[in-house]
Amino acid sequence: MPLAPLPAILIEPIVREALLEDLGRAGDLTTDAIVPLELKTKTVMAAREEGVVAGLDLAALAFRLIDPTIRFQPMIEDGAAVAPGARVAIVEGRARGVLTAERVALNFVGRMSGVASATAKLTAAVSHTKARIVCTRKTTPLLRAIEKYAVRAGGGSNHRFGLDDAVLIKDNHVAVAGSVAEAIRRARAHVGHLVKIEVEVDTLAELEETLGVGVDAVLLDDLKRGVAMIGHRAISEASGRVTSETARGIAETGVDLISVGWLTHSAPTLDLGLDAA
Amino acid sequence: MPLAPLPAILIEPIVREALLEDLGRAGDLTTDAIVPLELKTKTVMAAREEGVVAGLDLAALAFRLIDPTIRFQPMIEDGAAVAPGARVAIVEGRARGVLTAERVALNFVGRMSGVASATAKLTAAVSHTKARIVCTRKTTPLLRAIEKYAVRAGGGSNHRFGLDDAVLIKDNHVAVAGSVAEAIRRARAHVGHLVKIEVEVDTLAELEETLGVGVDAVLLDDLKRGVAMIGHRAISEASGRVTSETARGIAETGVDLISVGWLTHSAPTLDLGLDAA
Amino acid sequence: MPLAPLPAILIEPIVREALLEDLGRAGDLTTDAIVPLELKTKTVMAAREEGVVAGLDLAALAFRLIDPTIRFQPMIEDGAAVAPGARVAIVEGRARGVLTAERVALNFVGRMSGVASATAKLTAAVSHTKARIVCTRKTTPLLRAIEKYAVRAGGGSNHRFGLDDAVLIKDNHVAVAGSVAEAIRRARAHVGHLVKIEVEVDTLAELEETLGVGVDAVLLDDLKRGVAMIGHRAISEASGRVTSETARGIAETGVDLISVGWLTHSAPTLDLGLDAA
Amino acid sequence: MPLAPLPAILIEPIVREALLEDLGRAGDLTTDAIVPLELKTKTVMAAREEGVVAGLDLAALAFRLIDPTIRFQPMIEDGAAVAPGARVAIVEGRARGVLTAERVALNFVGRMSGVASATAKLTAAVSHTKARIVCTRKTTPLLRAIEKYAVRAGGGSNHRFGLDDAVLIKDNHVAVAGSVAEAIRRARAHVGHLVKIEVEVDTLAELEETLGVGVDAVLLDDLKRGVAMIGHRAISEASGRVTSETARGIAETGVDLISVGWLTHSAPTLDLGLDAA
Amino acid sequence: MPLAPLPAILIEPIVREALLEDLGRAGDLTTDAIVPLELKTKTVMAAREEGVVAGLDLAALAFRLIDPTIRFQPMIEDGAAVAPGARVAIVEGRARGVLTAERVALNFVGRMSGVASATAKLTAAVSHTKARIVCTRKTTPLLRAIEKYAVRAGGGSNHRFGLDDAVLIKDNHVAVAGSVAEAIRRARAHVGHLVKIEVEVDTLAELEETLGVGVDAVLLDDLKRGVAMIGHRAISEASGRVTSETARGIAETGVDLISVGWLTHSAPTLDLGLDAA
Amino acid sequence: MPLAPLPAILIEPIVREALLEDLGRAGDLTTDAIVPLELKTKTVMAAREEGVVAGLDLAALAFRLIDPTIRFQPMIEDGAAVAPGARVAIVEGRARGVLTAERVALNFVGRMSGVASATAKLTAAVSHTKARIVCTRKTTPLLRAIEKYAVRAGGGSNHRFGLDDAVLIKDNHVAVAGSVAEAIRRARAHVGHLVKIEVEVDTLAELEETLGVGVDAVLLDDLKRGVAMIGHRAISEASGRVTSETARGIAETGVDLISVGWLTHSAPTLDLGLDAA
Repeated sequence: MPLAPLPAILIEPIVREALLEDLGRAGDLTTDAIVPLELKTKTVMAAREEGVVAGLDLAALAFRLIDPTIRFQPMIEDGAAVAPGARVAIVEGRARGVLTAERVALNFVGRMSGVASATAKLTAAVSHTKARIVCTRKTTPLLRAIEKYAVRAGGGSNHRFGLDDAVLIKDNHVAVAGSVAEAIRRARAHVGHLVKIEVEVDTLAELEETLGVGVDAVLLDDLKRGVAMIGHRAISEASGRVTSETARGIAETGVDLISVGWLTHSAPTLDLGLDAA
Repeated sequence: MPLAPLPAILIEPIVREALLEDLGRAGDLTTDAIVPLELKTKTVMAAREEGVVAGLDLAALAFRLIDPTIRFQPMIEDGAAVAPGARVAIVEGRARGVLTAERVALNFVGRMSGVASATAKLTAAVSHTKARIVCTRKTTPLLRAIEKYAVRAGGGSNHRFGLDDAVLIKDNHVAVAGSVAEAIRRARAHVGHLVKIEVEVDTLAELEETLGVGVDAVLLDDLKRGVAMIGHRAISEASGRVTSETARGIAETGVDLISVGWLTHSAPTLDLGLDAA
Repeated sequence: MPLAPLPAILIEPIVREALLEDLGRAGDLTTDAIVPLELKTKTVMAAREEGVVAGLDLAALAFRLIDPTIRFQPMIEDGAAVAPGARVAIVEGRARGVLTAERVALNFVGRMSGVASATAKLTAAVSHTKARIVCTRKTTPLLRAIEKYAVRAGGGSNHRFGLDDAVLIKDNHVAVAGSVAEAIRRARAHVGHLVKIEVEVDTLAELEETLGVGVDAVLLDDLKRGVAMIGHRAISEASGRVTSETARGIAETGVDLISVGWLTHSAPTLDLGLDAA
Repeated sequence: MPLAPLPAILIEPIVREALLEDLGRAGDLTTDAIVPLELKTKTVMAAREEGVVAGLDLAALAFRLIDPTIRFQPMIEDGAAVAPGARVAIVEGRARGVLTAERVALNFVGRMSGVASATAKLTAAVSHTKARIVCTRKTTPLLRAIEKYAVRAGGGSNHRFGLDDAVLIKDNHVAVAGSVAEAIRRARAHVGHLVKIEVEVDTLAELEETLGVGVDAVLLDDLKRGVAMIGHRAISEASGRVTSETARGIAETGVDLISVGWLTHSAPTLDLGLDAA
Repeated sequence: MPLAPLPAILIEPIVREALLEDLGRAGDLTTDAIVPLELKTKTVMAAREEGVVAGLDLAALAFRLIDPTIRFQPMIEDGAAVAPGARVAIVEGRARGVLTAERVALNFVGRMSGVASATAKLTAAVSHTKARIVCTRKTTPLLRAIEKYAVRAGGGSNHRFGLDDAVLIKDNHVAVAGSVAEAIRRARAHVGHLVKIEVEVDTLAELEETLGVGVDAVLLDDLKRGVAMIGHRAISEASGRVTSETARGIAETGVDLISVGWLTHSAPTLDLGLDAA
Repeated sequence: MPLAPLPAILIEPIVREALLEDLGRAGDLTTDAIVPLELKTKTVMAAREEGVVAGLDLAALAFRLIDPTIRFQPMIEDGAAVAPGARVAIVEGRARGVLTAERVALNFVGRMSGVASATAKLTAAVSHTKARIVCTRKTTPLLRAIEKYAVRAGGGSNHRFGLDDAVLIKDNHVAVAGSVAEAIRRARAHVGHLVKIEVEVDTLAELEETLGVGVDAVLLDDLKRGVAMIGHRAISEASGRVTSETARGIAETGVDLISVGWLTHSAPTLDLGLDAA
């Protein structure tokens, strides 16, 4: 299956809000003052550096919400790798709308492509192993759904989408419960049958206790020995400040997942621009 | 005047939305399962690396919106420089609320402190000149107001907040109008008396034409000769991919402003965490 | 752990919207016309029939949003069984606010207690087995979170909260994929590591194929033989128009879960009223 | 005049919210994983039991908001009686959208048809009299407008839509005012000339006092003697836990209206489903 | 009964939106730049001309939403007549919040007091008759509830609040129905028992037909003869561009209601200001 | 450049909200009862008095949001002067939608045309001078953007849109700062380079101090001597209760701007109506 697009009903409120944020109370003063109402233009959205593109549906929506007659024609699909100068989309229609929506469209594509590009680099670094790159809940406030999508566009996979779709037992929870086993027991009693449970373990003793009780996934500290001890009894996850350089070594331990917070909170945007066609 | 706080009425909808994004439909499964309702906790928000902090009001609000009885006591103010390990705030109250709001609070402070820290570094690099570091409209969608605030917290200044609070004439506008002078004339006829006009000029001829007509600010390409030609007739601005290394040289040309898009779209977050007190 | 309350930030928008729906543009004409502004009252919210109560936080919020000085004092907790006449809460304060918010408060508690009571009856019918009663996505539009909570208050457990927190492969999906095994394979490749997969199987052959590939849960048609075949390899679920009479027999097959759509879409409300104290 | 449809501008926010509630942050995982993007399908929405259908516009909107290219073709109109197996609508288009919107569409039509069907049964039971079946304010929070519409679709009529469109004086109001007459006097002085006044009376003495002052409608306790006493001086209303069995007798007293709370708060949904065409 | 205040839950969204409209993305630049954070102030809201005041709750809310520690102490109540210079309220607290909220608070009180003052003038002009001054649906978009309240504060009464709380049959409706009688018949068949019906009649023949069928109110063209013909059979209403001068004559015809569109769409604001205390 | 239209994305929420305000929970009872669903109509929106029209896009949107098949064909453009009886637009389509949206459409056009007409009158009165008529922040709450647009349609210009797009130093700010010069200094240090600064001065001494420091604009009390003293050093503004009669004299002092609060808060609406075509 190719990458599934985000439902329009989910992204429209975000794009609409972003446009209103930029238009303020008076709209695009510069363009309204200078550009005739019916003047047409044809422009190309192009990459200025190498990377993986994501967010074209949001760009299309930004132009359409400003002027439904503007035609946004993608040249590639989300998830495609681009070289510097690559044409990403053709934008054609009334110049006013194109100029007014340009910045918001680029802000979305730049950020989402930045996340996708960073993910793709890490994914490539571990492609000779079974390890998958996953994102975390360290996302930009209000943009979680589109950043998680961008991670998928870059070939990565998603960890929890929120506090409510899986259990992740951390050290504070263990401390409150008294033991890992008791924490897991409470979680299992509390949640529905379709909710998975993952535990963060700090020591091999804790890991042993965890595996004894049984969980779906384990977030490991001592990676090497942890992975070996787990075997097929749970999904293993490594985390921390992973880079393209360190990812390879981590993946080669045999770990199933490498979670990377900076993919969503600190990946630099991909540079793109709009040029005359 | 110290840094003015953002009005609560402006930031509350953002923090509320971010919490709802994280809580989903079922809330914090893990904490609800494991942590007793009335258990109290005391934790410290601490910096894990050097930087400048911003966003403490948003963190306070995140905890308060989850549980109004939680006490968030800042140890420093937005704009303060911190060393690794520095205590940023004390968070005290029911453990459930503290754990549930923790990630959202940190996501805000991390991102805003990241922007402030990057701004502070550039500001320091040009502090021996009159140049000010300013941000652009290349902000994270939906977060413009708080990112612009973070730039101020880092000692920077703000460019336009949107398309509606100033005129910025770029090359496309000039192309449509036929000449810089005509573009400026149209803008002046269109806008109110409290709206400033800035022009992006590519050549010295264009600059001369611009200064002849008169504008408030000029975004320059050929910086050295441009700054000299302008003198006191307008505010001068430089832009582009400015780093701590290149900022100094740019500032020493005598330019008034250095605008930096990556401050808001690509500054890495500042690492902070919540530790047991 | 006792029943975890719903976060106030989740329920407030619902209660607020319900009050606005009832107040319309002109507010409570009758009460405003007749009841003096400062007249105080003390009333008792009481059950008029046997059942299990849920939704007291929403009732409290309804009164508080209309008049923050009204004191809503619960006599019991959500999940408690009540006899006819049982006092559920004391409501004390300005009579205007009490009368204005009364209907909305009762509408919430009545509906949620109706769901909880129906769940409790089914739960009691299967209490000698390991079977758990679970609800479905056949909930009242806009009220899913509070109806799922009411199911928990009645001693039941929750199935999926939406289309996004677990995979449930039904016959149409199997038809499209060509086989159960292929459908499961596609699902596994698509979703993150914390997403569980459940399959609806119509025949024992399909069940065998499903167990061969491995899934987290199975929704069964031929219950008896299905449960036996599954053993400990997956969670087993029965569904259909289950009543207190039929639930016992279904549970005694050894099935893990009995899902019941009518708990949320057709359970009659529990009758409660507000009486002078 | 046939049943007037609800304005699209009123129902769209409700349907949109219901879809977002089901899609969560990640959308329809199962369908996105398994069903190819362009696969087309043709399905039939069919009744599984006897009843009266309502809510087809909301179903149509659910599909359209997910995918505007889906064609929803109603076979009957709201208010039509159906037998088990009756075809209600054809749904045709991309399979993804059809599967994703199916549950929400059915949740709306099921609930609204449930209300309409219950109303139709009571209406039929009193059709040999002048009595009309009316609903109350005991509606599902946030769904009042569509439930009141469903009552009309079932042949019933609507009582107040909220606290602001008519005066209904109950015993608490009378107690505060000191007498029925004083309560009515205060109400009349307070409200505009287009607001009707109804009074709930417990005794014949109170009824006499009420008729002496004059009101638009009276909610009666002692039905038989009350109706006779009123004559043409006001509209008479009976209420309480009315069933198909008891409605006939009540109607034959000559009362004008029989109000029934459970129509909106406890009518079971009508069972409908989507089948391959 | 004194004037009933508007429920806070109804006015808060309006005041909040008005403040956000004024604060924009950056808040009160002037005050933030100049006024120290903790500086206190004490000011008086005073009338600058004669009139009737309304909207003090909205002013109080404007200050409270900006800074909950500001104390807004009304000196009079809504509906009170004021002379030029009269003190309306004391506003005390941090100067920043007072200055920031001042304009929005005054905009509300000015507009609502303008409506109340105009209403009071007309009401006084007809006080020797039984005629009441009523407003129409020609209100300022988004402000209907508060303008209708202001009319009540000025001693007037309210016509319909919207298209849904009463029937008003105009000439176009009559034209479509074929006759007044048929229009009334259709309306009666369509609406619930608590909905009143008013008809606009152009000729005495139409009036006779209307009274024959029976309605609740009649909007008259030929006032004198119309009022006489109606007697006690319906409420009579006059409309048109009524002024203080013409109102007296109209009222003396014995008409029950005089509806005045300009009260809400064209009444000039009452001049008020904030002065140092 | 002709008047730039307001972006649809800005006005749609306002028009939508206004329609919902009028429809309430039950929609247009009268029209639904009387007018057949498919009956077509053709009507003309016509001016009933002389003035300048504004707001046609909002009227068009009102009809379209109620029924997308209605065709609204403007006969003139916003900003055009009309005589009594002038045809403003043709409205054609299903009669139900036309009747239901009529009032809201007229409320918008009436109010906005009222503002435009008043502005045009003042503008004409000063057309022999360089003075421009500008509006203030004394706008109707929630309608600032469309009222400011209406001022432009009438030939006027806009002052600040809010507290955040320019600095306006008033006497209270000066009092806090200690001197005009200090207030200006603080403002300049606080705001970005694209924010203009205006000062309200009460005395010529203050004006001198202001001009010494340098600002963008000055709001004057002693107009004649002030304008002379300013020369070309700043934009000069007069304010106060300006009428068509007094505007001429004020303008002839040579002042640049005349700001008029009542344009937006007290201009009477322009009378328009919908007639059969």
